[in-house]
Amino acid sequence: RARPAHQYTPGRPVSVSALQPSDTFPRRHNSATPAEQAVMASECGFNTLDALIDATVPAAIRAPPMQFTGKFDAGFTESQMLDHMAHLASMNKTYKSFIGMGYYNTHIPAVILRNLMENPAWYTQYTPYQAEIAQGRLESLLNYQTMVADLTGLPMSNASLLDEATAAAEAMAMCLGIVKSKKKTFLIASNCHPQTIDICQTRATGFDINVVVSAAKDFDYSSGDVCGVLVQYPGTEGEVLDYAEFVKDAHAHGVKVVMATDLLALTTLRPPGEIGADIAVGSAQRFGVPMGYGGPHAAFLATSQEYKRLMPGRIIGVSVDSSGKPALRMAMQTREQHIRRDKATSNICTAQALLANMAAMYAVYHGPAGLKAIADRVHGLAGTFAHGLKKLGTVTVQELPYFDTVKITCADANAIAEEARKNEMNLRVVDANTITVAFDETTTLEDVDKLFKVFSGGKPVDLTAESIAPEVSSSIPPSLVRDSPYLTHPIFSMYHTEHELLRYLHKLQSKDLSLCHSMIPLGSCTMKLNATVEMMPVTDPKFANMHPFAPIDQAAGYHEMFDNLGDLLNTITGFDSFSLQPNAGASGEYAGLMVIRAYHKARGDHHRNVCIIPVSAHGTNPASAAMCGMKIVAVGTDAKGNINIEELRKAAEANKDNLSALMVTYPSTHGVYEEGIDEICRIIHENGGQVYMDGANMNAQVGLTSPGFIGADVCHLNLHKTFCIPHGGGGPGMGPIGVKKHLAPFLPSHPVIPTGGFPLPEKTNPLGSISAAPWGSALILPISYTYIAMMGSQGLTEASKIAILNANYMAKRLEKHYPVLFRGVNGTVAHEFIIDLRGFKATAGIEPEDVAKRLMDYGFHGPTMSWPVPGTLMIEPTESESKAELDRFCDALISIREEIAEVENGKADAHNNVLKGAPHPPQLLMGDAWTKPYSREYAAFPAAWLRGAKFWPTTCRVDNVYGDRNLICTLQQASQVAEEAAAATA
Amino acid sequence: RARPAHQYTPGRPVSVSALQPSDTFPRRHNSATPAEQAVMASECGFNTLDALIDATVPAAIRAPPMQFTGKFDAGFTESQMLDHMAHLASMNKTYKSFIGMGYYNTHIPAVILRNLMENPAWYTQYTPYQAEIAQGRLESLLNYQTMVADLTGLPMSNASLLDEATAAAEAMAMCLGIVKSKKKTFLIASNCHPQTIDICQTRATGFDINVVVSAAKDFDYSSGDVCGVLVQYPGTEGEVLDYAEFVKDAHAHGVKVVMATDLLALTTLRPPGEIGADIAVGSAQRFGVPMGYGGPHAAFLATSQEYKRLMPGRIIGVSVDSSGKPALRMAMQTREQHIRRDKATSNICTAQALLANMAAMYAVYHGPAGLKAIADRVHGLAGTFAHGLKKLGTVTVQELPYFDTVKITCADANAIAEEARKNEMNLRVVDANTITVAFDETTTLEDVDKLFKVFSGGKPVDLTAESIAPEVSSSIPPSLVRDSPYLTHPIFSMYHTEHELLRYLHKLQSKDLSLCHSMIPLGSCTMKLNATVEMMPVTDPKFANMHPFAPIDQAAGYHEMFDNLGDLLNTITGFDSFSLQPNAGASGEYAGLMVIRAYHKARGDHHRNVCIIPVSAHGTNPASAAMCGMKIVAVGTDAKGNINIEELRKAAEANKDNLSALMVTYPSTHGVYEEGIDEICRIIHENGGQVYMDGANMNAQVGLTSPGFIGADVCHLNLHKTFCIPHGGGGPGMGPIGVKKHLAPFLPSHPVIPTGGFPLPEKTNPLGSISAAPWGSALILPISYTYIAMMGSQGLTEASKIAILNANYMAKRLEKHYPVLFRGVNGTVAHEFIIDLRGFKATAGIEPEDVAKRLMDYGFHGPTMSWPVPGTLMIEPTESESKAELDRFCDALISIREEIAEVENGKADAHNNVLKGAPHPPQLLMGDAWTKPYSREYAAFPAAWLRGAKFWPTTCRVDNVYGDRNLICTLQQASQVAEEAAAATA
Ligand SMILES: Cc1ncc(COP(=O)(O)O)c(C=O)c1O
Ligand SMILES: Cc1ncc(COP(=O)(O)O)c(C=O)c1O
Ligand SMILES: O=C([O-])O
Repeated sequence: RARPAHQYTPGRPVSVSALQPSDTFPRRHNSATPAEQAVMASECGFNTLDALIDATVPAAIRAPPMQFTGKFDAGFTESQMLDHMAHLASMNKTYKSFIGMGYYNTHIPAVILRNLMENPAWYTQYTPYQAEIAQGRLESLLNYQTMVADLTGLPMSNASLLDEATAAAEAMAMCLGIVKSKKKTFLIASNCHPQTIDICQTRATGFDINVVVSAAKDFDYSSGDVCGVLVQYPGTEGEVLDYAEFVKDAHAHGVKVVMATDLLALTTLRPPGEIGADIAVGSAQRFGVPMGYGGPHAAFLATSQEYKRLMPGRIIGVSVDSSGKPALRMAMQTREQHIRRDKATSNICTAQALLANMAAMYAVYHGPAGLKAIADRVHGLAGTFAHGLKKLGTVTVQELPYFDTVKITCADANAIAEEARKNEMNLRVVDANTITVAFDETTTLEDVDKLFKVFSGGKPVDLTAESIAPEVSSSIPPSLVRDSPYLTHPIFSMYHTEHELLRYLHKLQSKDLSLCHSMIPLGSCTMKLNATVEMMPVTDPKFANMHPFAPIDQAAGYHEMFDNLGDLLNTITGFDSFSLQPNAGASGEYAGLMVIRAYHKARGDHHRNVCIIPVSAHGTNPASAAMCGMKIVAVGTDAKGNINIEELRKAAEANKDNLSALMVTYPSTHGVYEEGIDEICRIIHENGGQVYMDGANMNAQVGLTSPGFIGADVCHLNLHKTFCIPHGGGGPGMGPIGVKKHLAPFLPSHPVIPTGGFPLPEKTNPLGSISAAPWGSALILPISYTYIAMMGSQGLTEASKIAILNANYMAKRLEKHYPVLFRGVNGTVAHEFIIDLRGFKATAGIEPEDVAKRLMDYGFHGPTMSWPVPGTLMIEPTESESKAELDRFCDALISIREEIAEVENGKADAHNNVLKGAPHPPQLLMGDAWTKPYSREYAAFPAAWLRGAKFWPTTCRVDNVYGDRNLICTLQQASQVAEEAAAATA
Repeated sequence: RARPAHQYTPGRPVSVSALQPSDTFPRRHNSATPAEQAVMASECGFNTLDALIDATVPAAIRAPPMQFTGKFDAGFTESQMLDHMAHLASMNKTYKSFIGMGYYNTHIPAVILRNLMENPAWYTQYTPYQAEIAQGRLESLLNYQTMVADLTGLPMSNASLLDEATAAAEAMAMCLGIVKSKKKTFLIASNCHPQTIDICQTRATGFDINVVVSAAKDFDYSSGDVCGVLVQYPGTEGEVLDYAEFVKDAHAHGVKVVMATDLLALTTLRPPGEIGADIAVGSAQRFGVPMGYGGPHAAFLATSQEYKRLMPGRIIGVSVDSSGKPALRMAMQTREQHIRRDKATSNICTAQALLANMAAMYAVYHGPAGLKAIADRVHGLAGTFAHGLKKLGTVTVQELPYFDTVKITCADANAIAEEARKNEMNLRVVDANTITVAFDETTTLEDVDKLFKVFSGGKPVDLTAESIAPEVSSSIPPSLVRDSPYLTHPIFSMYHTEHELLRYLHKLQSKDLSLCHSMIPLGSCTMKLNATVEMMPVTDPKFANMHPFAPIDQAAGYHEMFDNLGDLLNTITGFDSFSLQPNAGASGEYAGLMVIRAYHKARGDHHRNVCIIPVSAHGTNPASAAMCGMKIVAVGTDAKGNINIEELRKAAEANKDNLSALMVTYPSTHGVYEEGIDEICRIIHENGGQVYMDGANMNAQVGLTSPGFIGADVCHLNLHKTFCIPHGGGGPGMGPIGVKKHLAPFLPSHPVIPTGGFPLPEKTNPLGSISAAPWGSALILPISYTYIAMMGSQGLTEASKIAILNANYMAKRLEKHYPVLFRGVNGTVAHEFIIDLRGFKATAGIEPEDVAKRLMDYGFHGPTMSWPVPGTLMIEPTESESKAELDRFCDALISIREEIAEVENGKADAHNNVLKGAPHPPQLLMGDAWTKPYSREYAAFPAAWLRGAKFWPTTCRVDNVYGDRNLICTLQQASQVAEEAAAATA
């Protein structure tokens, strides 16, 4: 397979193009060479790739060639890219942060940094829907849940939420859910972080909740309408209040208590569960996850058993496999949007799995005593600082107990902060006379000494932190001192040396299939290459160690990137402004709909609240619309899988006066470029609605057409699909939204660091905020930025074409063996396609799950199962997969079709066959007692390539139903396990 | 297992120590906690760890506590270390190098950087002696050999040598070997790199070879004494000469031709094999391995089939496993020093496996067309530069053909070089009027433009590289243009996208056991933790991208590290000066003996050439002594394994007049602190000899005693053992030598960049040079430096103690099951120990190999086998292994002992049992036809822990003899494989 080589033949003149840098990127990302493209297009019945594309993408929506400005158009080479990113990094000034507010410096244990965060075997994993090839990260996420449960003192935790502020908003929605929406007031204590308050307020508008912010002591329950309250512990300005009486009082009024809290403090403070809180939320960032200018980090939500079915987000649970051995899997999925749509507990889908794993590993590495030592140290440094300030007497120190944050009253807060910045330290200025100083794991005695000098106006002081430390006592009153144990499971005590942790990481990693092994052709998920150069800036300290609320001029590198990325995304999408705040696809949907809502309101159209959503839409679409308080009107699809335009027209016209928006995915979730898309947009606009495009399928648009060109008004991009942010085993993601000019003023801002669209329109009228951080998970934006910049406009357009080619090539090979559902007018599919397995239920008793599990025996991850059409598989190969890999996957599916045929023609038993028995882990295959009617070798090595190297599933098929019936969502002590096993078999 | 926690209890005063930074390192490196230490010491029969140490290390050699200067004594925390290294890095100025001379800038493909060079699953592997759990790197090393063979046009290549210059010296020794030392003159062309010439000259003195350096055209064979010649192609100053007639002439005189060459150039130039060269040597550095201020890089040596048994170094070959399937393993080990001792083809042991793998992967990623494109581009840029200079007319360009290096005559070379440095570019100044400019993969058209300006005295010029490129033609004459194909094996054409390469890397990695899986208790090899913080600076561009001959003032960060490291090593060893040049243990031995030789010579003792070496010495000892022209006198050991002192005394006295040195390993290779070591040193000194200590067992000395304290005069340290440089699957290593004051003047220097010991004595009289680069493999020195700096004096001393504790704990557990050979006077062992398996040969027909292979089924790498005592295993746990891991390993060995007992008592068949059948790869265990008398489950899961996660061997037992008989050392085309298989079965 020859790659395009530079032409320079001896004796012949040198061509200038042959002297251009050779480390170009597109040929490393896009798989098919020109020669292969020709072969594959011809297999699909076309003379050229372009002919295939022309037949596939409707002419009406083909946009003129995309063009980027300046050097972005041709694209950077890999080394040029690294240089550019190093240059941007050098523009960021990573002053030491004492800002706090939910973001702290932390030492990322290097062993975790290298072997988890920088390890493609971890970061290229998909969400663990296929439990049998995901036991590693499932164990780690169970560790995360156990850590959160232990530290908060509440038995149930999820894994994970997007950030602390949205976790608080989710908790608010839970409170509403608990009272079945019968009480619609939610009280928020003013000692919560401002971003938490702001996001709850924004979120409340969609739920029609009445939010009141005041000091907790002033909470008034007399209306009888209060469903819940939110307090923070420790408070945003550091104070540690005793909420025992407060909680009793709230409960006495039938009010649920949500507590925003801090995991490190909880090693030392009485936990929310023991105080009686109903829900605890917070961030696990300071457990070894870099601040990253705002994210990504894992947030958590913990609650009691009672409310578990109302919890948002993914939850890992213990179950058993078909051999009766314990095995993990995602529990209670019936709560989630992919099942319950607008009735779901929340719209959260992509979460923060990778960061949850990092935080869990941090706890595993430090163990309970180690975490306590860190907490005591932080508290000790804060105490030493407070004590020193009192001795110096230049300012007044607040007398309330604190954990890590000291509050100070002074004559001129800004002058002190300015003096601190001169020393490369950032403090929080609360108001003209108030400063807080938050300490963390990285603070040193020398830092405290520097602070003493800062608070003395830069003049040397005659005390040192070291000298006064012995005079200091803890400020935490005995009633608030934690005495209950935590992290008592042996997992938190076994891996405290680097070798032990390295091996634990490696052991878990080895159980999980990732893109390091084979293609993961998840329809709608675009599991493409996550190239190393794209990933490298993410762990550059100059990007990683920046507090989201640091003064903007310290983040010049970030802001140059935001501006450039905004430009590039606008060009790609045909929009006018981009918000980089939403930190997942669903978060983008919600943000986009909120923009539309704000737009209508600004025009006096308060009544416009109908959202039309095709039945084929992703579950997050209705779930997000519900969160905006919209009334959902479903429209069906026709036999070809296209939106039924007449039905749509009727729905739009019927709701003409109240029409807010249409949500539409393009190409459709059926993998087809609907010809009627421009008409659909026209109908919506004519009836006063706005078109929201779900950009999940953007990988089939880039460079060929665009949402803006097609007629959409808003669109979110899943940067973790189309733009190369790896899936991380279930997050992080980024879901920025692009909008047309008329919507740009309404893009989200932020209560601490005002922001808006890129570029920022002259006049703004922001809807509020959507994420805890001004630019969402800023740390992973370099991934998408470098991808776009290295591909250039042509590389990106090629990518779309090859993605479509690869899907069509596979569909062509497979159509002889499986019905391919839905095609475009010329018989082609888009960048993904659906094969129909429904017939096999009758002919062989075979379900899609059987095929997906059997694929594991072939070394593959199953495609998207039974979505958007039950009984089918949706396959999306992406442009990064080579023809050889596509062929291997097709061979596997064809071989499985033959295995189905064996059942159909009676050669194999209908109940006991190689599909029903799949997957086959080694311990089963090597069992002395092999009673299956088929051979071990056939079970293990159904294809020749498996003999060279095979990825092994580690459990037999996991029983989902059992797990949901016997819900266990934390690590069990051995004694408990024995008891429960006894109970189960009894 | 509680770790020491900081004490800070609420209400209680803050202790200052609890406020010290918490990210301390020793507790992450050293395994046993104080509580565990007590338990383990007690199991060994001692009240405390210190009591065990006191009983073990002879009082006579216990040194006072070690103390480092300044902050090194207490040790850096992990984050302090990273800050310090970032600071040093920032002191290095990585100007763009045009120096050439065997070192070139290169783009390390990021996918290789992250997934191989920065991946512990690759870099913590051991040398692939245990083939069944090493097929991944064996395949990659076979790729390396194939790449070298294809590009040089010679059929046999090794994998690998230490650097190009020592490879040339090895080739010289081969020429001597080919003529059985009957001709003792070796001619070297003056167009070789100066370091190559210098090293050959130094090496020649030991072999008593007469080296003559002159222009190749002036070579004179008339003496009849010439065994070989060395020429360079392309030459050090860039010229590409046609050696066709030259080779014919040499051969006509019975003279062998060695050609030093460049792999990139060979994609374009007629290869040495086609020109008729007998041996080709060179470096694979520019294939994606950073310059690293000199190393590590893989060098190569290729030759014809005829001379293969004379080749130095490790060679990978194809063989079959016991099931008849192809499998790889190290071939022809009978040539090597561990078998042949002073009769070995060379002393090279640790080589450059990791770097060879990087270079091979670079070739795999680019493929033949990609490499050719790079070569053409480099050549095109050189041509454009030469052409531009001619047009500018300010200097004269040499007219000979060149590949990448242009030679220029000018009025003031230093002025031009100075102007270049102002532009952050380094040129090579050959003499006052001569400059060369070497181009490489990273050079750009803009660089050429900058050079035009430099060569115009800084004045702008009115031509650009881009504008004149079309006027340029290749300078290579048709007779020298390569037309033969290379890298035609499919492996070099299958992995050209990042996904494909990522998966190939991952596939190979998955086949290999590394420290990521389990302990690798190789006696004498000290496979300890290679911590991430230690590894991180290695891939910092500010360390990685530095040319070894860059002006010293550009490498201030490196030099501060060298100075500090020299100090620390002197303190640790009790020596006065350290040379950082030798880049492996054996290279250190050779260097140390050459220092002794130079010392004797300087005193007029030219005749002192007897080297006493105990029979228990490592094979490199006699091999190195032989290379120094020494006469080896062996002395035996007594029944306790100690050197027979009386025999030694006699040998010393008998050789009194000619005694040069004793080579002694301490603690002994038998794992015992010989009580008589001080007496031994005394005897040698009294008889006029010097004591060379082999520092391989330094891990049992650090902080407790030291070579200097004991009485040694010289010692090499294996930084890749005691000081945490990972083994890399067979290298890199570093073997710096420390010496007493009287030897310091003789430490090696360098012909290009003079150097010497750290600290440098006032007067020097260097022996010559030992490695191609002034400070050997400088890039990996940060690993040892950070290890020492983070451990501090106490952490290091603890490490030695725990290493000894761990060995004694294991010996104690195992002695009930296996005889433990050799102990000290108090019944304890040192940091390693030997278990005796010789008895099982008679009782059960079981050999050590059977035990080692069966250990694989338990997920372990076998200990050192049959060295230093045949029929035994030598176990070295190191301080980094936890008690849990030691117990697991002991459990495995105890379980294997029971399996042996089954054979002994007739329950298992003597020829067909679980030991003889080991290892058991999955394809065997799942085979439908299982005919073994034992069960599959027992074969696969002999211990409970294997059910949770097991590392699988990938082949059945590999047949060494078959492979040596049917030697195949390159990838075979499928057609060839079929033919050979047919031949084999015929
Ligand atoms: C079509 C579609 N829309 C929306 C989403 C939600 O995106 P996220 O998981 O990032 O919230 C998905 C995710 O799979 C999707 O496929
Ligand atoms: C005792 C001893 N001496 C010398 C050496 C040679 O060291 P190297 O492999 O680094 O050349 C070894 C290597 O294992 C050894 O164990
Ligand atoms: O590597 C050894 O030969 O011990």
